[in-house]
Amino acid sequence: MLEQVRGGTIDVDAAMVRMRNMPFEDLGFAKVDHHRALRHGMPEVIFAKGKTSEQVVAIAERLLDNSRNVLITRADRECGAEVTGRLAGGEYFPLSGVIRFFRDPTIRGKGKISVVSAGTSDMPVAEEARLTAEVMGNQVESIYDIGVAGIHRLLSSRERLAEARVIVCCAGMEGALPSVIGGLVSCPVIAVPTSVGYGASFNGLAALLGMLNSCSSNVSVVNIDNGFGAGYVASLINRP
Amino acid sequence: MLEQVRGGTIDVDAAMVRMRNMPFEDLGFAKVDHHRALRHGMPEVIFAKGKTSEQVVAIAERLLDNSRNVLITRADRECGAEVTGRLAGGEYFPLSGVIRFFRDPTIRGKGKISVVSAGTSDMPVAEEARLTAEVMGNQVESIYDIGVAGIHRLLSSRERLAEARVIVCCAGMEGALPSVIGGLVSCPVIAVPTSVGYGASFNGLAALLGMLNSCSSNVSVVNIDNGFGAGYVASLINRP
Amino acid sequence: MLEQVRGGTIDVDAAMVRMRNMPFEDLGFAKVDHHRALRHGMPEVIFAKGKTSEQVVAIAERLLDNSRNVLITRADRECGAEVTGRLAGGEYFPLSGVIRFFRDPTIRGKGKISVVSAGTSDMPVAEEARLTAEVMGNQVESIYDIGVAGIHRLLSSRERLAEARVIVCCAGMEGALPSVIGGLVSCPVIAVPTSVGYGASFNGLAALLGMLNSCSSNVSVVNIDNGFGAGYVASLINRP
Amino acid sequence: MLEQVRGGTIDVDAAMVRMRNMPFEDLGFAKVDHHRALRHGMPEVIFAKGKTSEQVVAIAERLLDNSRNVLITRADRECGAEVTGRLAGGEYFPLSGVIRFFRDPTIRGKGKISVVSAGTSDMPVAEEARLTAEVMGNQVESIYDIGVAGIHRLLSSRERLAEARVIVCCAGMEGALPSVIGGLVSCPVIAVPTSVGYGASFNGLAALLGMLNSCSSNVSVVNIDNGFGAGYVASLINRP
Amino acid sequence: MLEQVRGGTIDVDAAMVRMRNMPFEDLGFAKVDHHRALRHGMPEVIFAKGKTSEQVVAIAERLLDNSRNVLITRADRECGAEVTGRLAGGEYFPLSGVIRFFRDPTIRGKGKISVVSAGTSDMPVAEEARLTAEVMGNQVESIYDIGVAGIHRLLSSRERLAEARVIVCCAGMEGALPSVIGGLVSCPVIAVPTSVGYGASFNGLAALLGMLNSCSSNVSVVNIDNGFGAGYVASLINRP
Amino acid sequence: MLEQVRGGTIDVDAAMVRMRNMPFEDLGFAKVDHHRALRHGMPEVIFAKGKTSEQVVAIAERLLDNSRNVLITRADRECGAEVTGRLAGGEYFPLSGVIRFFRDPTIRGKGKISVVSAGTSDMPVAEEARLTAEVMGNQVESIYDIGVAGIHRLLSSRERLAEARVIVCCAGMEGALPSVIGGLVSCPVIAVPTSVGYGASFNGLAALLGMLNSCSSNVSVVNIDNGFGAGYVASLINRP
Amino acid sequence: MLEQVRGGTIDVDAAMVRMRNMPFEDLGFAKVDHHRALRHGMPEVIFAKGKTSEQVVAIAERLLDNSRNVLITRADRECGAEVTGRLAGGEYFPLSGVIRFFRDPTIRGKGKISVVSAGTSDMPVAEEARLTAEVMGNQVESIYDIGVAGIHRLLSSRERLAEARVIVCCAGMEGALPSVIGGLVSCPVIAVPTSVGYGASFNGLAALLGMLNSCSSNVSVVNIDNGFGAGYVASLINRP
Amino acid sequence: MLEQVRGGTIDVDAAMVRMRNMPFEDLGFAKVDHHRALRHGMPEVIFAKGKTSEQVVAIAERLLDNSRNVLITRADRECGAEVTGRLAGGEYFPLSGVIRFFRDPTIRGKGKISVVSAGTSDMPVAEEARLTAEVMGNQVESIYDIGVAGIHRLLSSRERLAEARVIVCCAGMEGALPSVIGGLVSCPVIAVPTSVGYGASFNGLAALLGMLNSCSSNVSVVNIDNGFGAGYVASLINRP
Repeated sequence: MLEQVRGGTIDVDAAMVRMRNMPFEDLGFAKVDHHRALRHGMPEVIFAKGKTSEQVVAIAERLLDNSRNVLITRADRECGAEVTGRLAGGEYFPLSGVIRFFRDPTIRGKGKISVVSAGTSDMPVAEEARLTAEVMGNQVESIYDIGVAGIHRLLSSRERLAEARVIVCCAGMEGALPSVIGGLVSCPVIAVPTSVGYGASFNGLAALLGMLNSCSSNVSVVNIDNGFGAGYVASLINRP
Repeated sequence: MLEQVRGGTIDVDAAMVRMRNMPFEDLGFAKVDHHRALRHGMPEVIFAKGKTSEQVVAIAERLLDNSRNVLITRADRECGAEVTGRLAGGEYFPLSGVIRFFRDPTIRGKGKISVVSAGTSDMPVAEEARLTAEVMGNQVESIYDIGVAGIHRLLSSRERLAEARVIVCCAGMEGALPSVIGGLVSCPVIAVPTSVGYGASFNGLAALLGMLNSCSSNVSVVNIDNGFGAGYVASLINRP
Repeated sequence: MLEQVRGGTIDVDAAMVRMRNMPFEDLGFAKVDHHRALRHGMPEVIFAKGKTSEQVVAIAERLLDNSRNVLITRADRECGAEVTGRLAGGEYFPLSGVIRFFRDPTIRGKGKISVVSAGTSDMPVAEEARLTAEVMGNQVESIYDIGVAGIHRLLSSRERLAEARVIVCCAGMEGALPSVIGGLVSCPVIAVPTSVGYGASFNGLAALLGMLNSCSSNVSVVNIDNGFGAGYVASLINRP
Repeated sequence: MLEQVRGGTIDVDAAMVRMRNMPFEDLGFAKVDHHRALRHGMPEVIFAKGKTSEQVVAIAERLLDNSRNVLITRADRECGAEVTGRLAGGEYFPLSGVIRFFRDPTIRGKGKISVVSAGTSDMPVAEEARLTAEVMGNQVESIYDIGVAGIHRLLSSRERLAEARVIVCCAGMEGALPSVIGGLVSCPVIAVPTSVGYGASFNGLAALLGMLNSCSSNVSVVNIDNGFGAGYVASLINRP
Repeated sequence: MLEQVRGGTIDVDAAMVRMRNMPFEDLGFAKVDHHRALRHGMPEVIFAKGKTSEQVVAIAERLLDNSRNVLITRADRECGAEVTGRLAGGEYFPLSGVIRFFRDPTIRGKGKISVVSAGTSDMPVAEEARLTAEVMGNQVESIYDIGVAGIHRLLSSRERLAEARVIVCCAGMEGALPSVIGGLVSCPVIAVPTSVGYGASFNGLAALLGMLNSCSSNVSVVNIDNGFGAGYVASLINRP
Repeated sequence: MLEQVRGGTIDVDAAMVRMRNMPFEDLGFAKVDHHRALRHGMPEVIFAKGKTSEQVVAIAERLLDNSRNVLITRADRECGAEVTGRLAGGEYFPLSGVIRFFRDPTIRGKGKISVVSAGTSDMPVAEEARLTAEVMGNQVESIYDIGVAGIHRLLSSRERLAEARVIVCCAGMEGALPSVIGGLVSCPVIAVPTSVGYGASFNGLAALLGMLNSCSSNVSVVNIDNGFGAGYVASLINRP
Repeated sequence: MLEQVRGGTIDVDAAMVRMRNMPFEDLGFAKVDHHRALRHGMPEVIFAKGKTSEQVVAIAERLLDNSRNVLITRADRECGAEVTGRLAGGEYFPLSGVIRFFRDPTIRGKGKISVVSAGTSDMPVAEEARLTAEVMGNQVESIYDIGVAGIHRLLSSRERLAEARVIVCCAGMEGALPSVIGGLVSCPVIAVPTSVGYGASFNGLAALLGMLNSCSSNVSVVNIDNGFGAGYVASLINRP
Repeated sequence: MLEQVRGGTIDVDAAMVRMRNMPFEDLGFAKVDHHRALRHGMPEVIFAKGKTSEQVVAIAERLLDNSRNVLITRADRECGAEVTGRLAGGEYFPLSGVIRFFRDPTIRGKGKISVVSAGTSDMPVAEEARLTAEVMGNQVESIYDIGVAGIHRLLSSRERLAEARVIVCCAGMEGALPSVIGGLVSCPVIAVPTSVGYGASFNGLAALLGMLNSCSSNVSVVNIDNGFGAGYVASLINRP
C-alpha cells in the first residue's frame, strides 16, 4: 500500500483510513479480525467463556463468511445449542465444550500428532486438544489413561509415541507424565496441566509446577486445562 | 509408680516430684530426654541448626551417657569439628552435615531399606536418610541418579527395588520419581522432596506438591530436604 | 515368558503382542489393569470423581471378575445408587462417599491399625481410611474426637494408641494431633490433613504445613483429605 | 486547652501551633513522640532495623530525657556497641538483639507472665518477649524447650503454667504448642510463631497458620518472630 | 484423687478408670467435656459447621445439663430452627449464625468491652464477637462503620473507645482499623480480619496480613472471620 | 468553629458535641457521611455487596437528600430492582451491576478520559469505570477489544488514545495491555486487572502482578475488577 | 513523513529504513531511545540493576547528548562512583541509589507534590520518589514518619497535605497510611508499598495487598519499593 | 536383541544383564547415559549447579568420548576455569555460566531461530538459549532490548521476526513480550520468564504467570530463567 501511496493511486488520508479499519470489523463489543486466519493460516477461534450466546453467534456468523473452519471453545450446553441451532454445519462436543465448524478437512500437517492423557478424568482437556489439532489439518492419534503409576501401560505405547512428530500430554495431580514421555521420545512435548485432583493439587497448580520443572528438556508448557493452546502449538510445530 | 504410692513406699509429694523431673534432665536451654530412646528404641538425635556448637556439645555429652548411638543433623563444618574434636567416637559427613556416633552396629531391621535419589544433586539428602537408617540398625542400599527422564536406567534397577521392604525416594525439580517407583513396587515408599532446582521449583515446593498428589497409593511424604525423617520412618516400618 | 521365547514355544511377534496387551484391558476411556491386584496383593480401587457413573460401573464390572474386593472412592450419592443397584454385593457409605465390595474378609495384617480423628468434622476422612484398611485385611480401631485442646481426652486413649502397629491420624485446622500422638507412641504415624476449618486454614493448607513440619520424627504425610491413601500405606506397613 | 482558648488566655493561632507541634518533636528523619509513654504508661521503644546507628542513638537520646525505661529492638552488634558506648545505662542482649535501659524496675503487673518456648532455637524470640515484659514492670517466668512431641515435659510444667495470668508461647515448625497449652490453662495465650524450621516451614508461615487455626479459643497471635509485640500485649493484659 | 489412692479409699484400677472416663462423656461421634466449663469458667461452646443438626442437638442437650449458658456458632438456618425447636431457651441470630442459650446473665467482667467494625459488611463477624462476650458475662458496646477512610467518624468515637478495657476490632479489605485504634488507646486490641472485600483481598488474607504487621504494639490477631475467638479472648482479658 | 468558640457564640461543650456528630448521620448499621461529597466534590457512592437491599435503599435515600448524583456499585439484579423501584430517577446497568442516579450531568473534567478493554469479557469492569467517570462529570470514550495479541487493532486506536488526558485500561489474563498503551501515550494510565481468564490466571492475580511490574513508568494499578476505583482516580486526575 | 513519501522527496525504501532506525540508537546490548523524552516530555531514565557499570555509563553518555536531565535508579555505590567519576554533572544519593543529572531545573508542574512516608525506614523509597518528581520539574514537599499508629502526628500535617495537588505515600508493614490520607484529602494518592517489615510482611506483600484493598477510592498503587514509578506518575498528574 | 535370544546366539541371563547395563555407565554419583545423544540426536548436556567441579569434569570427560558437542549449564566461574583448564576445546561464557565444547558445527536446522529479549538484563538467559540452539546445529539470530513499552522498537524488528521458523522470547517483569510477538508472527514462540525485576515480580513469578495466560495461542512456556530448555525445544521444532 505504501507503493500505492507513492504512485498516487490512493491519497494519504484514504490510506490512513484503510490502514486503520481494514484488517478487522468492529461489532461494538468485539473487533472481528478477518486477517488473523490469513496471517496464521489457521481457523478462526472464539473463546466463548464470558461472552453471551448472542455475542458468540454474532462473531461466529462473521467469521464463517471468511473462514471455512471455525472453532469455538469453552461453550456451555446452552451456548452449544444456540450456536448449532442458528448456524448450519456446527457440531457440539459436550465433554470439552467445543463447537466445531469443520468444512475444510484437508490434512496440512507433515506428521502425526499424539494426544496423550494420564487418566480418564483428563479426557475433556485432551479432547479439546484433539479437536483443535484436527481442525487445523492434522492427523491425530489419542492415547488415554497411561499414567506413570502403571509404567507398563505407558511402555506398551512406546512405539506409537515414537512415531509422533509432536506430542500433547495432558495430566493432573502430580503432572509427571510429560517428564517420563519426554525421556522416551525425541520430538517436542507440549505439556498441559489439568485441574484434575483435590487437596494439595490446588486446582492444577501442582501439575503446572511439576511440568515447568520437568527434567526432560523437550517439554514446554501451556496454561492449566488449556487443551486448545496445546493443540494449536502442536499444529504449528507439525507444519511442513 | 502408682502401685508404689498405693503401697506407701513413696509418698504422694515425692511421686509428684519424680513424675515431673524424672524422664528428662534440664540443662536450662534444653531438656535432655533420657526416656526417648527407651520409648522409641531409637538412637538419640540432635537437630544442630539454630543451636550453638557449645549447646550441641553439651547435649551430646549427656546423651552419650545413656545411648550408644547418637545422631546429630544439620551441623555445619565448624560444629562438626567442635563436636568430633571434643567427644570421642564421632564421625562427620560434610555432604549432609551429619555427625554420627555409631557404637552399636547391631542390625535390627527385618529387611532391606533402599535409598533412591533422582539426581546427583539430591545426594546430600539421600545421605542423611542412609546414615539415619543405618544408625537405627538397618541394612541400607543406595541407588543414585535414576531420574524419570531416563526410564531405562530406572527400570534396570527394578529388581533391586523389588527386594526392598521399604524405599526412601529423594527427588527435586518435579518430584516424579516416587510415583513411578511406587507403581513398580508393592512396599511403602517414603518420598522426600528436595530443594534441588531453580525458578518455579520454589525451593522444593514443586516437588513437595507433586509427591503429595502422587497417583501411586503407597507413597507418603516428609518435609522438604528431610532425609532424616524419611530414614527414621523407614526404620520404624522395617522393624520386625 | 523370555524362557518360552527361548524354547520356541511362542514366537517373537506373538510375545511382543502379549507383552504389550496382557497386563491390562483397554475400555477406550480406561485401561483396566488386572495385574495390579496381583502385584500389590491389594483390592482393586476406582477413583470415582471426574468419571461418569456409567464409566465407574463399567470399570467395576471388569475388576470384580478378577478381584474379590473392590473399593470405589469419592462417589456421590447418584453414583453410589447406580453402582450398588447394578452390581451385587456392594455397600455405599454416604459420609465418606465410599462404595465397597468386601467379599473376602480375611485378616492379613499383623497387628492393629488405629484410625484417629481430632474432631467430629474429620470423620468422613477417617471413615475412608478405616474402610480402606479393613478391605485390605486389617483389624482397625477408630478413636474419634481427641483434639489437642483437650489433652486429657487424648491421654486417656494413650494405652489404646500404644497397642497399634501403625496409626492413621486425621486432623484439620492447625493439624497438631500427629505431633502429639507421634511423641506418645513408637510406631509410624500417617498424618492426613483435612480441609476442616475456615479462614486461614485455606482448605487444609494450614494442617498440611503443620504436619509436614512435625517435630515428631515418626510422622509422614499424605494429601489433604486423602483418607484412602493413608489407609493404604498403613495397610502396607502392617503386613507381616 | 479548648478551655484556655475560650478564656482567651491563648489565642486561636497559637493554639493551632501548639496542637500541631506539641505532642512530638521533629528530628527530620523521625518524629519523637513524648506523649506515647504517657498515653500508654509504657517505656519508649525504638525498632532499630532499617535505621542507622546514628539515628538510633539520636532518637534514644531524646527519649531518655523523658522516660526512665527505653527498649531498643532488632539492633545488630554494631548498633548495640554504638548505643551502649555513647549512652550510659544501657545493656545489650546479643541473642535477641535487644538494648535495654531499665532505670525504673517497679513491678506494676498484677500477676505472673510465663514466657514459654517449644525448642532451644526459639530462645531469641522468647528472650525478646521476656525483656519487654520485664521492662514494662512485670514478674516474668521463662520455661524453655517443652515442645509437644515430648508431652510429659510439657505436662510436668502444668502447675507452673496454671499460675500465670497470661502466657506468651513461642514455637516454630508446626506451631502446635499454643493449642496444647491453651487447652491446659484458662488465661489468655499470646502465640508467637517463630521462623525456626526449614523446607515447608516457609520461614514461619506454617507455624503462623497453625496458630491462627488453633482449636483452643484462648489463643491470639502476633507476627512471626515478634517477641516484642507478644511481651507488650501480655503486659497490657497483666495490668491490674 | 492421688490422696484417695494413697488412703486406700479407691483402688488403683478404679482410679485408672475414673481418670480416663470422668472428665468427658463419649457420644461416639463426639466426646462431651463437662469439665471444660469448670476449667475455664466459661459457657460451653459448639462449632456447628461440619456437624449435622442431629449431632448439634445431641451435644447441646448434654451440655445444657451441666451449663447454664451454651453458645453454638456457625449454624445455618436449618440447624438454627432444629435446635431452637427441640431445645427450650435458645435464640437464633441469623446474621452471624449464632444460637445462644443465655440462662445466666450475671456480669462477671471488670470493665467494658468495645466491639468495633470498619464497615456495615463486617457486622456478622462483629455480632458473633458481641454475643460471645455477652454470654461470658461482659458489658459490651458495639460501634459500627468507623472505617479509616473517614477518620473524623473514628475520632468522634475516641472517648468511648478510651473507656474500654479491651477492644475487639473487625475489619476486612486492607484491615487498617486496628492499627489506628491501637494508636489511640492503651488497652489491648484483638483484631479480627474479615473476608469482606473482593479481588486482591483474597478472602481476608490482605486484612490478616495487615493486622499481623500492625505498627501498633497492642494488637494481637485471631483467624479470619473468627468473631467468636476474639470475643472469647477479650472476655478472658476482662476478668477481674 | 474554633473562632466561634473564641468569640463565645457557642460554648465548648456544644462545640464538642457538634464536632463529633455533625459530619455524618448514624443509621445504626451505617454512618452516612454528608460531608464526603463536599470534601471530594464527588457523588456519593454505596458499595452494595454484603449489604441487604433494605440497607442500600435506606442509605441511598439519605444520600439523595444532599447529593444530586449517587452511584451504587456491585448491586445484584434483585437489589437493582428494589432500589430503582423504590427511589425515582435511578438506572440499573446489569452488565456491571451499577445503579446510577445522574441528576446533574455537568461536565467538570478538563479533558477526555479513555476507557480501554483488552477483550469482550472485560466489558463489565470497563462499564463500571465508564459510568463512574461520567457521573463525576467527565467526557468518556470507550474503546473495547484491543488486546495485545492483535497489535494492529491497538495501533489503529493510537490517535484516539493520544487525545486522552488519562486512560483507564482493563485487562485480564496476562494483563499486558497497560504496558503497551503506557508506552504509546504520555498521560497517566490507570490499570485495572480483571478476573477474566482461567487456570493460572488465579482469578486476576496474573494480570495484577503483570500490571504492577509494568515496564511503562506511567502506569499505576487498582484492585482486581475495581472499575469504580479506576474511574474515580481518573476523574480526580482529569480535574482542571 | 508519509506526506514526504507522497511528495516524492524521499523514496519508499529510504522511508522504511528511517522509520525503522530513527527513533532509537542500537548499542548492541541496548536500544537507546532518543524520542522517549520527546514523547513524554520527560528526563531519560536508566534502571541500573542488572546492568554493568560500563553499560550504564555507555547508555548515560548517549542520553546526555540529547537530554538535559537524566535519572539513573537502583545504582549501587560502585556504579555511582563510576558514573559520577566519568560523566560530569551527576550527583549520587546513596540512601536510594539514585544518580541524577539535573541540568534543567525549570518548574513545570502546576501544583505541589507531597511525598509522605510512614516510618524512618521507608525513607529510601520516599527519596527515590522525591528525586524523580524534582527532576521532572515539580515542587516537592517531604513529610516523613507520620504512621497511622500516631494519628495525631498525621493530623498535624493535615493542612499541608490538603495543599498538595497529588500525594505519593510510602509505607511498609501493614501499609495503612494511604487509606487514612486518602480519606483526608481530595487529590489522587499514589501508594508505594515498601519492603520494610519482617515475618508476615513477606517483603512488602502485606503492604501491597493492603493498599490494593484500600477503602479510600482515590488511591492507586505501584510496585513494591517503586518510588521512581510513583514520582513519575505523580509528575504526569501534576502537569498543567 | 530379542531375535538374538530367539536364535540362541545369546542366552537369556546374558540378555538380561546387557539390557540392564548397556545404555549407561555408572560413575557411582552419576549414571552417564551414552544413548541419550543417539536417541535425541543431541549434544550431551550437564547441569552443573549442585555438582562439584570434580563431578562435572568427570562426567564431561566420559561424554566427550562419545559426543562431539557437549554443553554444560549453570557453571560458576570456578567450575568454568576447572573444566576449561582440564579438558581441551571448551569455551566458558561468564554472562550465562555456559561451558561449550562445539567440535561439530554442522547446521542441521531447517530455518532460522530468533532469540529475543525484552531488556538488557534478560541477556544472560537469552545467551543460554542462543548457545544451546547453536550447539544443536541451528542458525540463530539475537534481537535484544525490544520491550513492549517501546512498541516502535519492537515493530522495527517485525520483518526479521517474520523470517524465523521458531522464536525464543525472554522477558522479566510483566513478561508481556511473548504475547505481542505471538500476535505478529505465525510460528511457535517459546516463552522464557526471567527473574529480572523486583518487588511484586517475585523472582520471575509475575512473568511466568503472564506468559502462561498469554492471549496469543502460539505461545508455550518453560521454567523461569530456563534459557537452555527454550533453546532445546526450539531446536527440536526447527528440525527438518
